[in-house]
Amino acid sequence: MAMMENVRPTEVIMGRLPHGSDLLEAITDICMKRNIRLGRVEALGAVTRARLGFYDQQTREYEYFTLEMPLEIASLVGNISLKEGRPMVHAHVTLADGEGRAFGGHLASGTTIFACEVIIESFGGPVFDRKFDPQTGLALWVDEK
Amino acid sequence: MAMMENVRPTEVIMGRLPHGSDLLEAITDICMKRNIRLGRVEALGAVTRARLGFYDQQTREYEYFTLEMPLEIASLVGNISLKEGRPMVHAHVTLADGEGRAFGGHLASGTTIFACEVIIESFGGPVFDRKFDPQTGLALWVDEK
Amino acid sequence: MAMMENVRPTEVIMGRLPHGSDLLEAITDICMKRNIRLGRVEALGAVTRARLGFYDQQTREYEYFTLEMPLEIASLVGNISLKEGRPMVHAHVTLADGEGRAFGGHLASGTTIFACEVIIESFGGPVFDRKFDPQTGLALWVDEK
Repeated sequence: MAMMENVRPTEVIMGRLPHGSDLLEAITDICMKRNIRLGRVEALGAVTRARLGFYDQQTREYEYFTLEMPLEIASLVGNISLKEGRPMVHAHVTLADGEGRAFGGHLASGTTIFACEVIIESFGGPVFDRKFDPQTGLALWVDEK
Repeated sequence: MAMMENVRPTEVIMGRLPHGSDLLEAITDICMKRNIRLGRVEALGAVTRARLGFYDQQTREYEYFTLEMPLEIASLVGNISLKEGRPMVHAHVTLADGEGRAFGGHLASGTTIFACEVIIESFGGPVFDRKFDPQTGLALWVDEK
Repeated sequence: MAMMENVRPTEVIMGRLPHGSDLLEAITDICMKRNIRLGRVEALGAVTRARLGFYDQQTREYEYFTLEMPLEIASLVGNISLKEGRPMVHAHVTLADGEGRAFGGHLASGTTIFACEVIIESFGGPVFDRKFDPQTGLALWVDEK
């Protein structure tokens, strides 16, 4: 069953991620250090390279690809919840090259920050825990009630 | 006249939309059921197909097109307000294909969810009601004061 | 040093920006008039033309380019902070043309609104002041503690 729950805004954190660090890991680190177990994240900035995933809905595996060039982060939209009891950041990004062409996908490790400004909002509320979803093959939130 | 008003955050709802359902209708259904008449929505995920609109600023008509393929939802940014007294979701999406190429436009009915995680924030405040705007031909918020 | 601070939501403003005005300037004007010195902004809509920047990480200069055509604003993600004591809007946009192709980059002056719906959230908290960052050549937030 799908899941839709009321959550309660608790904290808002705003700042800049370190130059040269991994984008997904840097956001995850903040969530770990501040014990954020539920929330949303948004960001803009630029990367020196990107590694993105596309979920193949037939084979049910992520295909990863790398964009080996400087790119603007036109948008990063993501959420924070738990997987196996630990905070997991699920974020998708839109990137743009020097000619303005846009690329997008599931943010994977291997994306290196040039400069990145982030806003994280943490929520209190029910536990959002990712579990294997047989319908899609993905780790999704499941209503256990 | 344009309109710019203070609104008051009331609720935050987070969850997953049903696999196989229509993306725009699924968000609209939540707003209907929970009586959300003003707010914002964001989402990420994937679709099995998409139907988007582009507003032709000359002819003043939406041109709709369909992308008949699995796509990641790189971003969905939208708002909720009233049209003819009923909640209306206005959302734009950025989508990405298996090679990372990005597409975007006005989210139309006919976009089918593979997996979608959504955050909806409801607001209290003045009535935001969409009415015909002669300058653009669109249904926009109008300051009636 | 990078900077990551707790901020406190203060106001939410929702509305429509004037047809024909400059997108970046219209958002900046609202921040000036309402004395918003820290916050986030999101928007969707359409423009009659766009002017975007791409930061060249080698030469450390923005390259600007113009898209002389009607485009949907698929997303606008941005933040508000201070530069030389005045509110500065830093926003990135994803745009889409009549065939759904997406473009993106740093929003620059010279982007003309056809219709645009915006949500601005203002924050209280520490001063976020942009200063020259020698590592990137950009005006970024610096932790002065």
